[in-house]
Amino acid sequence: MKRFFPLVFILTSVMQAQTLKSPNGKITVTFSAKEQLTYEVRFENKVVVDVSRLGFKLKDIGDFSSGFRVVGESRSSENTTWQPVLGEVSNIVNSYNEVIFNLLRDSDKRQLNIHFRAFDEGIAFRYEFPKQSNLNYFVVSEELTAFQLTEDYKAFWIPADFDSQEYVYNETPISKIDVDNLNLNNGIGMKSIATRYGVQSPLMLKSTTGLYVNIFEAAVVNYPVMHLAVDPKSYLFSALLAPNPLGEKAYLQAPYNTPWRTVMISKDARDIVGSKMILNLNEPSKIKETSWIKPMKYVGVWWEMHVGKSTWDYAGSQNAQNTGKELIASGKHGATTQNVKRYIDFAATHGFDGVLVEGWNTGWEDWFGNWKEDVFDFVTPYPDFDIKEITEYAKSKNVKMIMHHETSGSVANYERRLDRAFAFMKKYGYGAVKTGYVGRIIPRGEFHDGQTMLNHFNWVAERAAEQKIMVNSHESTRPTGYHRTYPNYIAAEAARGNEFNAWSSGNPPMHETILPFTRLLGGPMDYTPGIFEIKMSAFDPAKKEQVHTTLAKQLALYVTLYSPLQMAADLPENYERHLDAFQFIKDVAADWQDTKYLEAEPGDYLTVARKDKLSERWFLGAITDENARKTEISLDFLTPGVKYKATVYEDGKAAHWEKNPKSYAIKTIQVTSKSKLQLHLAEGGGAAVSIVPIP
Amino acid sequence: MKRFFPLVFILTSVMQAQTLKSPNGKITVTFSAKEQLTYEVRFENKVVVDVSRLGFKLKDIGDFSSGFRVVGESRSSENTTWQPVLGEVSNIVNSYNEVIFNLLRDSDKRQLNIHFRAFDEGIAFRYEFPKQSNLNYFVVSEELTAFQLTEDYKAFWIPADFDSQEYVYNETPISKIDVDNLNLNNGIGMKSIATRYGVQSPLMLKSTTGLYVNIFEAAVVNYPVMHLAVDPKSYLFSALLAPNPLGEKAYLQAPYNTPWRTVMISKDARDIVGSKMILNLNEPSKIKETSWIKPMKYVGVWWEMHVGKSTWDYAGSQNAQNTGKELIASGKHGATTQNVKRYIDFAATHGFDGVLVEGWNTGWEDWFGNWKEDVFDFVTPYPDFDIKEITEYAKSKNVKMIMHHETSGSVANYERRLDRAFAFMKKYGYGAVKTGYVGRIIPRGEFHDGQTMLNHFNWVAERAAEQKIMVNSHESTRPTGYHRTYPNYIAAEAARGNEFNAWSSGNPPMHETILPFTRLLGGPMDYTPGIFEIKMSAFDPAKKEQVHTTLAKQLALYVTLYSPLQMAADLPENYERHLDAFQFIKDVAADWQDTKYLEAEPGDYLTVARKDKLSERWFLGAITDENARKTEISLDFLTPGVKYKATVYEDGKAAHWEKNPKSYAIKTIQVTSKSKLQLHLAEGGGAAVSIVPIP
Repeated sequence: MKRFFPLVFILTSVMQAQTLKSPNGKITVTFSAKEQLTYEVRFENKVVVDVSRLGFKLKDIGDFSSGFRVVGESRSSENTTWQPVLGEVSNIVNSYNEVIFNLLRDSDKRQLNIHFRAFDEGIAFRYEFPKQSNLNYFVVSEELTAFQLTEDYKAFWIPADFDSQEYVYNETPISKIDVDNLNLNNGIGMKSIATRYGVQSPLMLKSTTGLYVNIFEAAVVNYPVMHLAVDPKSYLFSALLAPNPLGEKAYLQAPYNTPWRTVMISKDARDIVGSKMILNLNEPSKIKETSWIKPMKYVGVWWEMHVGKSTWDYAGSQNAQNTGKELIASGKHGATTQNVKRYIDFAATHGFDGVLVEGWNTGWEDWFGNWKEDVFDFVTPYPDFDIKEITEYAKSKNVKMIMHHETSGSVANYERRLDRAFAFMKKYGYGAVKTGYVGRIIPRGEFHDGQTMLNHFNWVAERAAEQKIMVNSHESTRPTGYHRTYPNYIAAEAARGNEFNAWSSGNPPMHETILPFTRLLGGPMDYTPGIFEIKMSAFDPAKKEQVHTTLAKQLALYVTLYSPLQMAADLPENYERHLDAFQFIKDVAADWQDTKYLEAEPGDYLTVARKDKLSERWFLGAITDENARKTEISLDFLTPGVKYKATVYEDGKAAHWEKNPKSYAIKTIQVTSKSKLQLHLAEGGGAAVSIVPIP
Repeated sequence: MKRFFPLVFILTSVMQAQTLKSPNGKITVTFSAKEQLTYEVRFENKVVVDVSRLGFKLKDIGDFSSGFRVVGESRSSENTTWQPVLGEVSNIVNSYNEVIFNLLRDSDKRQLNIHFRAFDEGIAFRYEFPKQSNLNYFVVSEELTAFQLTEDYKAFWIPADFDSQEYVYNETPISKIDVDNLNLNNGIGMKSIATRYGVQSPLMLKSTTGLYVNIFEAAVVNYPVMHLAVDPKSYLFSALLAPNPLGEKAYLQAPYNTPWRTVMISKDARDIVGSKMILNLNEPSKIKETSWIKPMKYVGVWWEMHVGKSTWDYAGSQNAQNTGKELIASGKHGATTQNVKRYIDFAATHGFDGVLVEGWNTGWEDWFGNWKEDVFDFVTPYPDFDIKEITEYAKSKNVKMIMHHETSGSVANYERRLDRAFAFMKKYGYGAVKTGYVGRIIPRGEFHDGQTMLNHFNWVAERAAEQKIMVNSHESTRPTGYHRTYPNYIAAEAARGNEFNAWSSGNPPMHETILPFTRLLGGPMDYTPGIFEIKMSAFDPAKKEQVHTTLAKQLALYVTLYSPLQMAADLPENYERHLDAFQFIKDVAADWQDTKYLEAEPGDYLTVARKDKLSERWFLGAITDENARKTEISLDFLTPGVKYKATVYEDGKAAHWEKNPKSYAIKTIQVTSKSKLQLHLAEGGGAAVSIVPIP
């Protein structure tokens, strides 16, 4: 497939050779090595990314972005289809044109290759440091990659923070991006703002003329994840990488391929929210036998701690210094054998696959906020958590237990105990683990988003795969499609989840309409939807916090926020009071053969229909922001000639996320592929529909 | 035992209350809390350590060395005897007077306790941060402990280096300590000089009037090891601790006890070299069942790599970048099944317990110097090392294999693989491991001597103890008696070992006369003596390197350098040419019921006699520096009335470490406790004597 052009050809054909077009011809990317390495991206011949820098500053070498000349190029095309283990669709089309430029710098005889791929919905490029005699080990001091936009797009942004992505999105023009204007009293426990003018990727943008642009990355391996520094005046974005304690970004050895940098462009937001580009840019599964990787709906001893009904810790104290080694039960501990059995019963009754239990292991009395290294050992249950009895009980009810490993950010401690922690899991039949990284990282001086931690998250996925364990990481770096390569890395949090609604200013109604355009482009999110008891005052009259949606929108999230791992996050007793609405959560699938993004506008609304992987059932979710919305949905995606029963879970007529969030209505209608579905979404509301063939 | 004095008593009895005397009354230490916390040490009423600072600078708190007042004190005495698992003697006497001062700072209600112990040969003190409401987690930014000497002692010093102790000792007055004057072209692969005016502890000193002083520490747990900053003009030494990448020294939680700081003082150098103070200051064994911890004499596939006969790596290349994954045998690999069997045969024939094999596992093609994280996995043998066959062969010969884990300083990698590495050892019946830490530490920015690494070394000892594995660490922090607490931590290198003689400027003849006064005070050293082929030109005529001793001195080192783990380091073929001299190495014990330091002068000479733990045999070693020496040794330590056969291995008449190192003579004489033994030691020479009862 590779063709090498003689140098003389290159020199006489610079204009043709250095441009790459997408299969549909709409997007072009143009590369130049003149003095400085640069690229430019156009959409329908209009400049979207103006001439922007490429390259690096390397330790001990210095500039690695200029003085190169093109000594070869190879072009190829791909148009294939592959099957994800779990996913939004059964078949993913991977269609792109590619060019690889081989660069040589005469001054030091060093080589660099740059790969460009053009897809219909965007372009991607990566750097390859090929094996070469003059470059073996090297250190990235700075990546110089830039994205020079040309106008003042509306941006959906959260601040560049090397330790957290748990922010509410801001919707401002680029020119108004300024972290100093934010209210940072937002419930985030561990913040490390990188710079005043910085944002995280994925960055979603919209121009005044309706062009949607998204800047992101794919396949981050042995490298920090990419944040973006912003010049709000010139609309220039530049790669911003979390340093290690010595200020360096990545320690590498040639040959090495960097992550892909991506720019998606479309006039239709659905092309971006539905894009599989990020997955396509990742390597195929390294796990050969994947039958043990399954979608999972679960409940758990978890929300009751968030709402203050019980505690993670046994002794009811967040400071073990004064309790000594002798822990005295407070009586408020959530993870008791008895309580866990209640959840197992609930899961068995309602057909959930698993039960998560947090706070089952010793250490919670003194776990947070002190940069303590040796907190948890991951193998010692509290005295009131009888793991043997629970294991047997769960097995008798055909329910799988989900392990919880909170590390408190002490990754050094977790890594040295990981083999034993996994062996303990296997001993008791746990096949999935939720990991947590709340706190400042140890090794001290590392950030959550640095190379060291990225490697840690990938390492856990690898080690877990060996043991046939599925991983759901919380407070990890946000994913970049690596779950294609390690499909047991089934989900992650890595954004502001539903939990913030329980004890902070929460997630405003538009939050869930933005996540699919940002965080979810990298991989499934364990958002933990399904809260029915919307207002925390139900637990404590003094509480003002609430979930910022209607109950019906909570149902819709199971469809709009893709994840093969879905929690029914509320308490059993809250579901038991609304079993009619709960039926949707019981019914909804978590793995899909097809997905249709029907309506999409970041920050405003999203309507998605998905077809169950294993049946002819469809599920539709529609959500809106703080504005009410009426819409008519064509069901033309249904199989022609088939009659379906549609059960519509919608907002009650007077529903409102704040004033009347629990008002909902359920109706059943018969539909076909010719039907139009009228949906009324309340302020902060949503609708969920199950569509089942009538036999 | 503890008595608390009312405050009024304290105030009216400052002079008595704040002074502590050694049991023999010769040493006194006086504490003061007036304004600044200080102490002073006298020997026979002469000030040795003048008023010197105590205390800390703590992060977020600031000064923690002044403003305290004494609110209580308790005094006690100890005079007990305990039995080490392995040691120089069967019974160790622990005799001291102790005072604990309870301090309170009114300004912030914070408490600090200072413990002093006075032994006959020196004083020790430690800081205790008791459990208290106003101090829980805290960070040590600086330890302010100082040692204000009063005159220009002769110092035996090596430069403060946070990554290595593999230096030749310098013998200069304190006033001439200056790292800038050293030749640092010394073969050390990884140096991190801490400061121009800094030395390592243990620091051995001698005054012009013949007073010996030694500054050291004991029981370092969760804390960096102590180096010393020096003011050469004022003779002031101050604690100098290796920082973490953020510049901090130790992350602690109250209650916490610091390591002991020690000052030994005597007019007789033998009191210092024979002191058990450091061991006495450590906690008793945490390993209950210790029968598996045994002394060990071993040979190994090791010296042949140092002399260039074979290589650690299989492919004969120190760079795997160009070999890819396919390793092509160079034919020079040392750790082949066949070669290992040769060593097993040799060990079996001559009664050695074990065989060490380095270079058995993949990774050596590209292991050093590039701060690479993922080098070794500790479980993958090279294709020419058939571990199953070797295991079975060794077992059939009743020889134990010793595992080798070189980490290349990548401790993050080692810790995450440690459980598997140990499981692999147990699978193949390995009961001991030699660890190695050649290279810059990962987590990057950490030093070998920092808190993180100290914790690592202790952690490995703990984890190994669980698996009944003995540990011999190389390039670790130098020990501080922690092998009392974890007696499976059987030996360490942590100083300039014999290997430097093979490929560097080497170890001058005085080197081994200083080690017992410095490095060995903390614990046994795996020095790897026993080199018979003294000059490296024997392997390659172009080589100028050589061992800087005579052959007879190599024998004496088995007695003078205490270790329960002793290597016969030279090649089997070199021993086979000198089987008469080799007999001493075969005979000498490695665990002792009694030890007599007969003559001692740091930098000049040392004569030691030791009695085998399990028999009535005695072994005597005598060494000298570059000067020849005649001495007469009274054998009055022998059992009266018993006749012994003494076999004397001594320098030949014309022997000289440089001109004629291999000249030796062996004679047999009959002796009793009334005998005097005449010894003639050549320049850089020594004598070894085995003394066996005649039945």
